Amino acid sequence: MSQTRIGRKETPAHVRPGPAIVLVEPQLGENIGAAARAMLNFSLGDLRLVRPRDGWPNPAAIATASGADFVIERARVFDSVADAVADRHYVLAATARPREMLLPVLSPREAAGEIAARLARGEEAAILFGGERAGLANDDVARADAIVSIPVNPAFASLNLAQAVLVTAYEWAAFAGLHAFAAPAALAETASRKDVDGLADQLVAALDAADYFFPPDKRPVMERNLRVLLARIGLTESEARTMRGVVKSLARRA
Amino acid sequence: MSQTRIGRKETPAHVRPGPAIVLVEPQLGENIGAAARAMLNFSLGDLRLVRPRDGWPNPAAIATASGADFVIERARVFDSVADAVADRHYVLAATARPREMLLPVLSPREAAGEIAARLARGEEAAILFGGERAGLANDDVARADAIVSIPVNPAFASLNLAQAVLVTAYEWAAFAGLHAFAAPAALAETASRKDVDGLADQLVAALDAADYFFPPDKRPVMERNLRVLLARIGLTESEARTMRGVVKSLARRA
Repeated sequence: MSQTRIGRKETPAHVRPGPAIVLVEPQLGENIGAAARAMLNFSLGDLRLVRPRDGWPNPAAIATASGADFVIERARVFDSVADAVADRHYVLAATARPREMLLPVLSPREAAGEIAARLARGEEAAILFGGERAGLANDDVARADAIVSIPVNPAFASLNLAQAVLVTAYEWAAFAGLHAFAAPAALAETASRKDVDGLADQLVAALDAADYFFPPDKRPVMERNLRVLLARIGLTESEARTMRGVVKSLARRA
Repeated sequence: MSQTRIGRKETPAHVRPGPAIVLVEPQLGENIGAAARAMLNFSLGDLRLVRPRDGWPNPAAIATASGADFVIERARVFDSVADAVADRHYVLAATARPREMLLPVLSPREAAGEIAARLARGEEAAILFGGERAGLANDDVARADAIVSIPVNPAFASLNLAQAVLVTAYEWAAFAGLHAFAAPAALAETASRKDVDGLADQLVAALDAADYFFPPDKRPVMERNLRVLLARIGLTESEARTMRGVVKSLARRA
Protein backbone atom coordinates (compact mmCIF):
# COMPACT_ATOMS: atom_id res chain seq x y z
CA MET A 1 0.00 0.00 0.00
CA SER A 2 1.23 3.45 -0.77
CA GLN A 3 0.98 6.18 1.81
CA THR A 4 0.21 9.03 -0.52
CA ARG A 5 0.73 12.46 0.90
CA ILE A 6 -1.33 15.09 -0.81
CA GLY A 7 0.60 18.26 -1.52
CA ARG A 8 -0.76 21.60 -0.46
CA LYS A 9 -0.31 23.22 -3.83
CA GLU A 10 -1.21 22.47 -7.39
CA THR A 11 1.59 21.85 -9.86
CA PRO A 12 3.24 25.22 -10.48
CA ALA A 13 3.70 26.35 -14.03
CA HIS A 14 7.45 25.96 -13.90
CA VAL A 15 7.29 22.21 -13.46
CA ARG A 16 7.27 20.49 -16.82
CA PRO A 17 6.39 16.95 -17.90
CA GLY A 18 9.29 14.61 -17.25
CA PRO A 19 10.36 11.54 -15.32
CA ALA A 20 9.46 10.96 -11.69
CA ILE A 21 12.50 10.77 -9.42
CA VAL A 22 12.26 7.85 -6.99
CA LEU A 23 14.65 7.79 -4.03
CA VAL A 24 14.80 4.28 -2.60
CA GLU A 25 15.59 4.15 1.13
CA PRO A 26 17.24 7.55 1.28
CA GLN A 27 18.92 8.22 4.62
CA LEU A 28 19.58 11.91 5.27
CA GLY A 29 16.84 14.48 4.93
CA GLU A 30 19.53 16.89 3.74
CA ASN A 31 20.12 14.74 0.68
CA ILE A 32 16.43 14.48 -0.08
CA GLY A 33 16.23 18.28 0.05
CA ALA A 34 19.29 18.66 -2.16
CA ALA A 35 17.80 16.22 -4.66
CA ALA A 36 14.56 18.24 -4.73
CA ARG A 37 16.56 21.39 -5.34
CA ALA A 38 18.49 19.72 -8.16
CA MET A 39 15.22 18.53 -9.72
CA LEU A 40 13.51 21.90 -9.72
CA ASN A 41 16.51 23.56 -11.37
CA PHE A 42 15.59 21.40 -14.33
CA SER A 43 11.81 21.71 -14.01
CA LEU A 44 11.17 18.28 -12.51
CA GLY A 45 8.66 18.19 -9.68
CA ASP A 46 7.55 14.59 -9.12
CA LEU A 47 9.56 13.25 -6.16
CA ARG A 48 8.77 9.83 -4.69
CA LEU A 49 10.34 8.27 -1.64
CA VAL A 50 10.46 4.58 -0.83
CA ARG A 51 10.90 3.88 2.90
CA PRO A 52 12.90 7.00 3.85
CA ARG A 53 15.01 6.02 6.86
CA ASP A 54 14.06 8.94 9.08
CA GLY A 55 10.37 9.02 8.25
CA TRP A 56 8.42 11.70 6.48
CA PRO A 57 7.96 14.66 6.55
CA ASN A 58 11.55 15.50 7.45
CA PRO A 59 12.40 19.09 8.46
CA ALA A 60 16.02 18.70 7.29
CA ALA A 61 14.76 18.09 3.76
CA ILE A 62 12.94 21.43 3.71
CA ALA A 63 16.01 23.21 5.07
CA THR A 64 18.28 22.06 2.24
CA ALA A 65 15.69 22.33 -0.53
CA SER A 66 16.61 26.04 -0.77
CA GLY A 67 13.22 27.13 -1.95
CA ALA A 68 12.18 23.95 -3.72
CA ASP A 69 9.78 23.51 -0.82
CA PHE A 70 6.80 22.54 -2.87
CA VAL A 71 8.69 19.59 -4.39
CA ILE A 72 9.22 18.40 -0.82
CA GLU A 73 5.63 19.18 0.15
CA ARG A 74 4.26 17.26 -2.81
CA ALA A 75 6.64 14.30 -2.39
CA ARG A 76 4.85 10.98 -2.02
CA VAL A 77 6.00 8.12 0.20
CA PHE A 78 5.67 4.46 -0.79
CA ASP A 79 6.33 1.17 0.93
CA SER A 80 7.91 -0.48 -2.08
CA VAL A 81 9.50 0.29 -5.42
CA ALA A 82 6.67 -1.62 -7.09
CA ASP A 83 4.12 0.77 -5.59
CA ALA A 84 6.22 3.81 -6.40
CA VAL A 85 6.38 2.99 -10.12
CA ALA A 86 2.99 1.33 -10.52
CA ASP A 87 1.67 4.15 -12.75
CA ARG A 88 4.86 4.38 -14.85
CA HIS A 89 5.50 2.73 -18.22
CA TYR A 90 9.26 2.97 -18.36
CA VAL A 91 11.58 2.62 -15.38
CA LEU A 92 15.30 3.38 -15.29
CA ALA A 93 17.65 2.39 -12.49
CA ALA A 94 20.51 4.81 -11.81
CA THR A 95 23.53 2.86 -10.72
CA ALA A 96 27.27 3.35 -10.79
CA ARG A 97 28.33 -0.23 -10.24
CA PRO A 98 28.31 -2.81 -13.02
CA ARG A 99 25.60 -5.37 -12.43
CA GLU A 100 25.43 -8.97 -13.43
CA MET A 101 22.24 -8.25 -15.31
CA LEU A 102 21.26 -8.27 -18.91
CA LEU A 103 19.75 -4.81 -18.94
CA PRO A 104 20.70 -2.15 -21.46
CA VAL A 105 23.09 0.41 -19.95
CA LEU A 106 22.34 3.96 -21.07
CA SER A 107 24.20 7.21 -20.60
CA PRO A 108 22.16 10.05 -19.08
CA ARG A 109 21.83 11.49 -22.58
CA GLU A 110 20.57 8.24 -24.05
CA ALA A 111 18.21 7.89 -21.11
CA ALA A 112 16.84 11.36 -21.77
CA GLY A 113 16.23 10.39 -25.39
CA GLU A 114 14.36 7.24 -24.39
CA ILE A 115 12.25 9.13 -21.86
CA ALA A 116 11.41 11.81 -24.41
CA ALA A 117 10.44 9.25 -27.05
CA ARG A 118 8.12 7.53 -24.60
CA LEU A 119 6.65 10.75 -23.31
CA ALA A 120 5.84 11.67 -26.91
CA ARG A 121 3.61 8.61 -27.13
CA GLY A 122 2.01 9.20 -23.77
CA GLU A 123 4.15 6.90 -21.63
CA GLU A 124 5.44 8.08 -18.26
CA ALA A 125 8.90 7.35 -16.91
CA ALA A 126 10.59 7.07 -13.53
CA ILE A 127 14.24 6.98 -12.52
CA LEU A 128 15.23 5.02 -9.41
CA PHE A 129 18.11 6.21 -7.24
CA GLY A 130 19.44 4.11 -4.36
CA GLY A 131 20.24 5.26 -0.86
CA GLU A 132 23.50 6.91 0.19
CA ARG A 133 25.15 3.84 1.61
CA ALA A 134 24.69 1.03 -0.84
CA GLY A 135 22.76 2.30 -3.84
CA LEU A 136 19.99 0.21 -5.32
CA ALA A 137 19.49 -3.43 -4.40
CA ASN A 138 19.78 -5.89 -7.26
CA ASP A 139 16.08 -6.70 -6.93
CA ASP A 140 15.21 -3.05 -7.51
CA VAL A 141 17.51 -2.82 -10.53
CA ALA A 142 15.96 -5.99 -11.97
CA ARG A 143 12.60 -4.22 -11.89
CA ALA A 144 13.85 -1.57 -14.31
CA ASP A 145 13.73 -1.53 -18.10
CA ALA A 146 17.28 -0.23 -18.33
CA ILE A 147 20.19 1.04 -16.28
CA VAL A 148 21.30 4.65 -16.50
CA SER A 149 24.91 5.17 -15.54
CA ILE A 150 26.83 8.43 -15.31
CA PRO A 151 30.24 7.92 -16.88
CA VAL A 152 32.71 9.07 -14.21
CA ASN A 153 36.43 8.79 -13.65
CA PRO A 154 36.97 5.11 -12.84
CA ALA A 155 39.77 6.11 -10.45
CA PHE A 156 37.51 8.56 -8.61
CA ALA A 157 33.82 7.76 -8.78
CA SER A 158 32.38 9.87 -6.03
CA LEU A 159 29.05 11.42 -6.91
CA ASN A 160 26.62 11.79 -4.07
CA LEU A 161 22.88 11.19 -4.36
CA ALA A 162 21.90 14.79 -5.17
CA GLN A 163 24.71 15.11 -7.71
CA ALA A 164 23.57 12.00 -9.53
CA VAL A 165 20.04 13.41 -9.61
CA LEU A 166 21.45 16.74 -10.80
CA VAL A 167 23.32 15.33 -13.79
CA THR A 168 20.41 13.12 -14.80
CA ALA A 169 17.90 15.97 -14.51
CA TYR A 170 20.23 18.32 -16.37
CA GLU A 171 20.46 15.91 -19.29
CA TRP A 172 16.71 15.52 -19.34
CA ALA A 173 16.14 19.26 -19.53
CA ALA A 174 18.92 19.73 -22.07
CA PHE A 175 17.59 16.97 -24.31
CA ALA A 176 14.03 18.20 -24.05
CA GLY A 177 15.21 21.75 -24.71
CA LEU A 178 13.22 23.01 -21.75
CA HIS A 179 15.27 26.08 -20.96
CA ALA A 180 16.75 28.76 -23.12
CA PHE A 181 20.16 30.20 -22.52
CA ALA A 182 20.80 33.50 -20.86
CA ALA A 183 21.30 35.33 -24.11
CA PRO A 184 22.61 38.89 -24.26
CA ALA A 185 19.82 41.26 -23.28
CA ALA A 186 19.88 43.15 -26.55
CA LEU A 187 21.20 41.64 -29.72
CA ALA A 188 23.27 44.29 -31.44
CA GLU A 189 23.21 44.69 -35.18
CA THR A 190 26.21 43.58 -37.14
CA ALA A 191 27.99 46.33 -39.00
CA SER A 192 27.34 46.40 -42.72
CA ARG A 193 30.11 45.84 -45.24
CA LYS A 194 29.90 49.54 -46.02
CA ASP A 195 30.57 50.41 -42.37
CA VAL A 196 33.52 48.01 -42.19
CA ASP A 197 34.95 49.20 -45.52
CA GLY A 198 34.57 52.79 -44.40
CA LEU A 199 36.50 52.03 -41.23
CA ALA A 200 39.19 50.25 -43.25
CA ASP A 201 39.46 53.17 -45.69
CA GLN A 202 39.84 55.58 -42.81
CA LEU A 203 42.48 53.40 -41.14
CA VAL A 204 44.47 52.99 -44.36
CA ALA A 205 44.37 56.75 -44.99
CA ALA A 206 45.57 57.47 -41.46
CA LEU A 207 48.37 54.92 -41.81
CA ASP A 208 49.34 56.42 -45.14
CA ALA A 209 49.63 59.79 -43.47
CA ALA A 210 51.84 58.21 -40.79
CA ASP A 211 54.14 56.56 -43.38
CA TYR A 212 53.19 53.14 -42.03
CA PHE A 213 53.33 51.26 -45.35
CA PHE A 214 56.97 50.50 -45.96
CA PRO A 215 58.58 49.28 -48.15
CA PRO A 216 56.14 50.48 -50.85
CA ASP A 217 56.07 47.16 -52.75
CA LYS A 218 54.68 45.41 -49.62
CA ARG A 219 51.86 47.90 -49.35
CA PRO A 220 49.16 45.88 -51.18
CA VAL A 221 49.72 42.81 -48.97
CA MET A 222 49.86 44.87 -45.78
CA GLU A 223 46.67 46.70 -46.65
CA ARG A 224 44.86 43.51 -47.57
CA ASN A 225 45.86 41.84 -44.32
CA LEU A 226 44.44 44.75 -42.36
CA ARG A 227 41.17 44.68 -44.30
CA VAL A 228 40.82 40.93 -43.78
CA LEU A 229 41.46 41.35 -40.07
CA LEU A 230 38.84 44.07 -39.71
CA ALA A 231 36.25 42.05 -41.61
CA ARG A 232 36.91 38.96 -39.55
CA ILE A 233 36.17 40.61 -36.20
CA GLY A 234 32.45 40.71 -36.87
CA LEU A 235 32.05 44.25 -35.53
CA THR A 236 28.68 45.54 -34.50
CA GLU A 237 27.46 48.85 -35.85
CA SER A 238 28.26 50.54 -32.59
CA GLU A 239 31.71 48.96 -32.39
CA ALA A 240 32.46 50.11 -35.94
CA ARG A 241 31.55 53.65 -34.93
CA THR A 242 33.74 53.33 -31.83
CA MET A 243 36.67 52.16 -33.94
CA ARG A 244 36.27 55.07 -36.36
CA GLY A 245 36.51 57.40 -33.38
CA VAL A 246 39.61 55.55 -32.15
CA VAL A 247 41.35 55.83 -35.53
CA LYS A 248 40.37 59.47 -35.89
CA SER A 249 41.70 60.28 -32.44
CA LEU A 250 45.01 58.52 -33.00
CA ALA A 251 45.43 60.04 -36.45
CA ARG A 252 44.93 63.51 -35.01
CA ARG A 253 47.68 62.94 -32.41
CA ALA A 254 50.04 61.70 -35.12
CA MET B 1 52.22 38.17 -9.25
CA SER B 2 50.90 34.71 -8.78
CA GLN B 3 51.50 32.85 -5.58
CA THR B 4 52.04 29.44 -7.02
CA ARG B 5 51.79 26.58 -4.62
CA ILE B 6 53.61 23.49 -5.78
CA GLY B 7 51.65 20.32 -5.25
CA ARG B 8 53.19 17.40 -3.45
CA LYS B 9 52.36 14.88 -6.13
CA GLU B 10 52.85 14.59 -9.84
CA THR B 11 49.74 14.55 -12.00
CA PRO B 12 48.08 11.20 -11.37
CA ALA B 13 47.20 9.06 -14.32
CA HIS B 14 43.49 9.57 -13.80
CA VAL B 15 43.64 13.29 -14.52
CA ARG B 16 43.20 13.95 -18.22
CA PRO B 17 43.83 16.99 -20.39
CA GLY B 18 40.99 19.46 -20.08
CA PRO B 19 40.12 22.98 -19.03
CA ALA B 20 41.48 24.59 -15.88
CA ILE B 21 38.75 25.50 -13.40
CA VAL B 22 39.25 29.01 -12.00
CA LEU B 23 37.25 29.98 -8.90
CA VAL B 24 37.21 33.76 -8.56
CA GLU B 25 36.93 35.00 -4.97
CA PRO B 26 35.35 31.83 -3.61
CA GLN B 27 34.13 32.20 -0.04
CA LEU B 28 33.63 28.89 1.75
CA GLY B 29 36.37 26.28 1.84
CA GLU B 30 33.60 23.68 1.76
CA ASN B 31 32.57 24.84 -1.68
CA ILE B 32 36.14 24.79 -2.97
CA GLY B 33 36.42 21.21 -1.74
CA ALA B 34 33.11 20.23 -3.32
CA ALA B 35 34.23 21.80 -6.61
CA ALA B 36 37.47 19.78 -6.49
CA ARG B 37 35.46 16.63 -5.90
CA ALA B 38 33.16 17.44 -8.81
CA MET B 39 36.18 18.05 -11.05
CA LEU B 40 37.94 14.80 -10.28
CA ASN B 41 34.79 12.78 -10.96
CA PHE B 42 35.26 13.95 -14.52
CA SER B 43 39.06 13.69 -14.61
CA LEU B 44 39.82 17.39 -14.28
CA GLY B 45 42.69 18.26 -11.95
CA ASP B 46 43.78 21.86 -12.63
CA LEU B 47 42.14 24.04 -9.97
CA ARG B 48 43.05 27.71 -9.69
CA LEU B 49 41.85 30.16 -7.04
CA VAL B 50 41.76 33.93 -7.34
CA ARG B 51 41.78 35.70 -3.97
CA PRO B 52 39.98 33.03 -1.90
CA ARG B 53 38.25 34.90 0.92
CA ASP B 54 39.53 32.75 3.78
CA GLY B 55 43.10 32.37 2.54
CA TRP B 56 44.85 29.24 1.41
CA PRO B 57 45.38 26.43 2.29
CA ASN B 58 41.97 25.97 3.85
CA PRO B 59 41.32 22.83 5.96
CA ALA B 60 37.58 22.94 5.21
CA ALA B 61 38.36 22.44 1.52
CA ILE B 62 40.23 19.22 2.23
CA ALA B 63 37.39 17.96 4.43
CA THR B 64 34.75 18.26 1.70
CA ALA B 65 36.97 17.14 -1.17
CA SER B 66 36.11 13.56 -0.17
CA GLY B 67 39.35 12.10 -1.41
CA ALA B 68 40.08 14.59 -4.15
CA ASP B 69 42.84 15.82 -1.84
CA PHE B 70 45.52 16.12 -4.46
CA VAL B 71 43.37 18.50 -6.52
CA ILE B 72 43.28 20.70 -3.43
CA GLU B 73 46.98 20.19 -2.76
CA ARG B 74 47.92 21.13 -6.30
CA ALA B 75 45.55 24.11 -6.47
CA ARG B 76 47.29 27.38 -7.31
CA VAL B 77 46.38 30.76 -5.91
CA PHE B 78 46.52 33.97 -7.96
CA ASP B 79 46.02 37.65 -7.23
CA SER B 80 44.03 38.35 -10.37
CA VAL B 81 42.03 36.66 -13.09
CA ALA B 82 44.58 37.93 -15.61
CA ASP B 83 47.37 36.05 -13.80
CA ALA B 84 45.23 32.94 -13.40
CA VAL B 85 44.57 32.62 -17.14
CA ALA B 86 47.85 34.03 -18.45
CA ASP B 87 48.93 30.65 -19.90
CA ARG B 88 45.50 29.87 -21.41
CA HIS B 89 44.40 30.45 -25.00
CA TYR B 90 40.64 30.26 -24.58
CA VAL B 91 38.72 31.51 -21.57
CA LEU B 92 35.07 30.88 -20.77
CA ALA B 93 33.07 32.70 -18.11
CA ALA B 94 30.37 30.64 -16.38
CA THR B 95 27.47 32.87 -15.53
CA ALA B 96 23.77 32.44 -14.97
CA ARG B 97 22.72 36.05 -15.38
CA PRO B 98 22.33 37.70 -18.77
CA ARG B 99 25.04 40.28 -19.32
CA GLU B 100 24.97 43.41 -21.38
CA MET B 101 27.91 42.11 -23.34
CA LEU B 102 28.44 41.06 -26.90
CA LEU B 103 30.01 37.73 -26.08
CA PRO B 104 28.80 34.45 -27.55
CA VAL B 105 26.68 32.49 -25.05
CA LEU B 106 27.35 28.75 -25.15
CA SER B 107 25.62 25.83 -23.51
CA PRO B 108 27.91 23.54 -21.49
CA ARG B 109 27.82 21.12 -24.43
CA GLU B 110 28.80 23.75 -26.95
CA ALA B 111 31.52 24.91 -24.57
CA ALA B 112 32.86 21.37 -24.36
CA GLY B 113 32.97 21.23 -28.14
CA GLU B 114 34.90 24.49 -28.38
CA ILE B 115 37.35 23.39 -25.70
CA ALA B 116 37.91 20.05 -27.43
CA ALA B 117 38.48 21.70 -30.80
CA ARG B 118 41.06 24.04 -29.30
CA LEU B 119 42.76 21.29 -27.33
CA ALA B 120 43.11 19.34 -30.57
CA ARG B 121 45.22 22.16 -31.97
CA GLY B 122 47.26 22.57 -28.83
CA GLU B 123 45.37 25.43 -27.17
CA GLU B 124 44.56 25.32 -23.48
CA ALA B 125 41.29 26.48 -21.96
CA ALA B 126 40.05 27.79 -18.63
CA ILE B 127 36.55 28.24 -17.23
CA LEU B 128 35.93 31.05 -14.73
CA PHE B 129 33.37 30.61 -11.95
CA GLY B 130 32.39 33.47 -9.68
CA GLY B 131 32.07 33.45 -5.91
CA GLU B 132 29.01 32.23 -4.02
CA ARG B 133 27.49 35.61 -3.38
CA ALA B 134 27.58 37.58 -6.58
CA GLY B 135 29.13 35.45 -9.28
CA LEU B 136 31.64 36.95 -11.68
CA ALA B 137 32.18 40.69 -11.94
CA ASN B 138 31.47 42.20 -15.34
CA ASP B 139 35.16 43.00 -15.75
CA ASP B 140 36.03 39.35 -15.34
CA VAL B 141 33.35 38.27 -17.81
CA ALA B 142 34.63 40.83 -20.31
CA ARG B 143 38.02 39.11 -20.17
CA ALA B 144 36.54 35.88 -21.50
CA ASP B 145 36.16 34.71 -25.09
CA ALA B 146 32.63 33.46 -24.46
CA ILE B 147 30.04 32.92 -21.77
CA VAL B 148 28.97 29.42 -20.76
CA SER B 149 25.52 29.28 -19.23
CA ILE B 150 23.73 26.26 -17.80
CA PRO B 151 20.14 26.35 -19.00
CA VAL B 152 18.08 26.10 -15.83
CA ASN B 153 14.46 26.62 -14.89
CA PRO B 154 13.94 30.39 -15.14
CA ALA B 155 11.50 30.19 -12.23
CA PHE B 156 14.02 28.35 -10.04
CA ALA B 157 17.65 28.98 -10.92
CA SER B 158 19.47 27.74 -7.86
CA LEU B 159 22.69 25.94 -8.69
CA ASN B 160 25.47 26.38 -6.20
CA LEU B 161 29.12 26.79 -7.15
CA ALA B 162 30.07 23.11 -6.97
CA GLN B 163 26.94 22.09 -8.91
CA ALA B 164 27.78 24.50 -11.71
CA VAL B 165 31.30 23.05 -11.82
CA LEU B 166 29.82 19.56 -11.77
CA VAL B 167 27.54 20.06 -14.78
CA THR B 168 30.26 21.81 -16.77
CA ALA B 169 32.84 19.13 -15.98
CA TYR B 170 30.35 16.38 -16.75
CA GLU B 171 29.68 17.83 -20.19
CA TRP B 172 33.38 18.12 -20.85
CA ALA B 173 34.01 14.47 -20.00
CA ALA B 174 30.92 13.33 -21.89
CA PHE B 175 31.90 15.28 -25.00
CA ALA B 176 35.49 14.11 -24.84
CA GLY B 177 34.29 10.54 -24.28
CA LEU B 178 36.68 10.17 -21.36
CA HIS B 179 34.81 7.51 -19.46
CA ALA B 180 33.10 4.34 -20.48
CA PHE B 181 29.83 3.19 -19.05
CA ALA B 182 29.47 0.57 -16.40
CA ALA B 183 28.62 -2.19 -18.82
CA PRO B 184 27.36 -5.58 -17.70
CA ALA B 185 30.28 -7.61 -16.38
CA ALA B 186 29.82 -10.47 -18.80
CA LEU B 187 28.00 -10.06 -22.06
CA ALA B 188 25.84 -13.12 -22.53
CA GLU B 189 25.42 -14.69 -25.92
CA THR B 190 22.19 -14.12 -27.74
CA ALA B 191 20.21 -17.28 -28.43
CA SER B 192 20.43 -18.52 -32.01
CA ARG B 193 17.38 -18.67 -34.24
CA LYS B 194 17.49 -22.46 -33.84
CA ASP B 195 17.25 -22.11 -30.05
CA VAL B 196 14.35 -19.67 -30.31
CA ASP B 197 12.53 -21.77 -32.90
CA GLY B 198 13.04 -24.86 -30.74
CA LEU B 199 11.48 -23.06 -27.80
CA ALA B 200 8.58 -21.89 -29.96
CA ASP B 201 8.01 -25.42 -31.31
CA GLN B 202 7.96 -26.80 -27.80
CA LEU B 203 5.53 -24.11 -26.61
CA VAL B 204 3.19 -24.64 -29.55
CA ALA B 205 3.20 -28.40 -28.99
CA ALA B 206 2.43 -27.92 -25.32
CA LEU B 207 -0.40 -25.51 -26.12
CA ASP B 208 -1.77 -27.95 -28.70
CA ALA B 209 -1.86 -30.61 -26.02
CA ALA B 210 -3.72 -28.17 -23.76
CA ASP B 211 -6.29 -27.29 -26.47
CA TYR B 212 -5.20 -23.67 -26.39
CA PHE B 213 -5.72 -22.93 -30.08
CA PHE B 214 -9.40 -22.22 -30.52
CA PRO B 215 -11.22 -21.69 -32.81
CA PRO B 216 -9.14 -23.79 -35.24
CA ASP B 217 -9.27 -21.23 -38.08
CA LYS B 218 -7.54 -18.66 -35.83
CA ARG B 219 -4.68 -21.05 -35.12
CA PRO B 220 -2.21 -19.79 -37.77
CA VAL B 221 -2.52 -16.18 -36.58
CA MET B 222 -2.31 -17.15 -32.90
CA GLU B 223 0.77 -19.30 -33.49
CA ARG B 224 2.47 -16.61 -35.56
CA ASN B 225 1.84 -13.98 -32.92
CA LEU B 226 3.49 -16.20 -30.30
CA ARG B 227 6.51 -16.86 -32.51
CA VAL B 228 6.92 -13.14 -33.23
CA LEU B 229 6.71 -12.37 -29.53
CA LEU B 230 9.36 -14.96 -28.63
CA ALA B 231 11.70 -13.72 -31.34
CA ARG B 232 11.29 -10.11 -30.29
CA ILE B 233 12.42 -10.68 -26.69
CA GLY B 234 16.03 -11.11 -27.70
CA LEU B 235 16.57 -14.06 -25.37
CA THR B 236 20.06 -15.09 -24.37
CA GLU B 237 21.10 -18.71 -24.73
CA SER B 238 20.69 -19.26 -21.04
CA GLU B 239 17.29 -17.57 -20.96
CA ALA B 240 16.13 -19.74 -23.87
CA ARG B 241 17.15 -22.85 -21.90
CA THR B 242 15.32 -21.48 -18.84
CA MET B 243 12.16 -20.89 -20.87
CA ARG B 244 12.27 -24.45 -22.27
CA GLY B 245 12.36 -25.72 -18.70
CA VAL B 246 9.47 -23.45 -17.79
CA VAL B 247 7.33 -24.69 -20.69
CA LYS B 248 8.23 -28.29 -20.00
CA SER B 249 7.33 -27.93 -16.36
CA LEU B 250 3.97 -26.26 -17.08
CA ALA B 251 3.12 -28.81 -19.78
CA ARG B 252 3.80 -31.65 -17.37
CA ARG B 253 1.40 -30.14 -14.82
CA ALA B 254 -1.27 -29.66 -17.48
